[in-house]
Amino acid sequence: MSTPPPDCPLCGGDGGVLVARTPELRAVLVDEPDYPGYVRVIWNAHVAEMSHLSEPERARLLAAVNLAETALRQVLAPDKVNLASLGNQVPHLHWHVIPRFRDDAHFPQPIWTARARDPDPDRLLRCRQALPALQARIARLLRMG
Amino acid sequence: MSTPPPDCPLCGGDGGVLVARTPELRAVLVDEPDYPGYVRVIWNAHVAEMSHLSEPERARLLAAVNLAETALRQVLAPDKVNLASLGNQVPHLHWHVIPRFRDDAHFPQPIWTARARDPDPDRLLRCRQALPALQARIARLLRMG
Repeated sequence: MSTPPPDCPLCGGDGGVLVARTPELRAVLVDEPDYPGYVRVIWNAHVAEMSHLSEPERARLLAAVNLAETALRQVLAPDKVNLASLGNQVPHLHWHVIPRFRDDAHFPQPIWTARARDPDPDRLLRCRQALPALQARIARLLRMG
Repeated sequence: MSTPPPDCPLCGGDGGVLVARTPELRAVLVDEPDYPGYVRVIWNAHVAEMSHLSEPERARLLAAVNLAETALRQVLAPDKVNLASLGNQVPHLHWHVIPRFRDDAHFPQPIWTARARDPDPDRLLRCRQALPALQARIARLLRMG
């Protein structure tokens, strides 16, 4: 764990709507209107790179990412799941776990590209309505470890 | 393993300059002039999502991604490493392992955004000159498993 800068947003707050927390990591829902169900899995300590973690720590973080992906697939049935650990702006380990749909605002491009369309509002509504079930499932899976 | 579509580019070819191959996966160098040292770690079988793999398979793939990240850091000393498994266009499991530098063409944005600048040519040259060392290190680490 490196010394966190005083302005690190992932040291100073949850980084989203808290879904589940363990002593090492947490899962949050990201407030991104185009992507209901977008989850971040955040390592609690201020660490920049995956290869800075020990092997058991890395395995536990990636297991949590996989549980989030599994919950997304079970609850939302997306066309694809996108996983990414970038951290160029906030070098505090966090994984983006993003449900992607063919009608979404950027498909098939990454969500960081220019917006291509308005998503289907009915599909967005179905995803939003499923968020409580998604949160419950992620929390349950993370508790089960 | 699902049935691959006949046009899957990662079933029909290496997907880059082959650096190392095991029975399950391979590492390739991506031909991307702005990003010398950009590696992809590709699962050989046609599988779409990480959560479709068994736990031991997933662990071996992520270990290879971590070896590639470690080699990148040792040889190129980037300011950040970006990891991503997207697969919206080619739903055949592959991990992007991307060395990022503050002067690169998109920093601090993801590499899929609009190009922001020309990278420092001296730094690009140093990265290009280090590619043989990078390839040798990735191949050695993957052999050691």
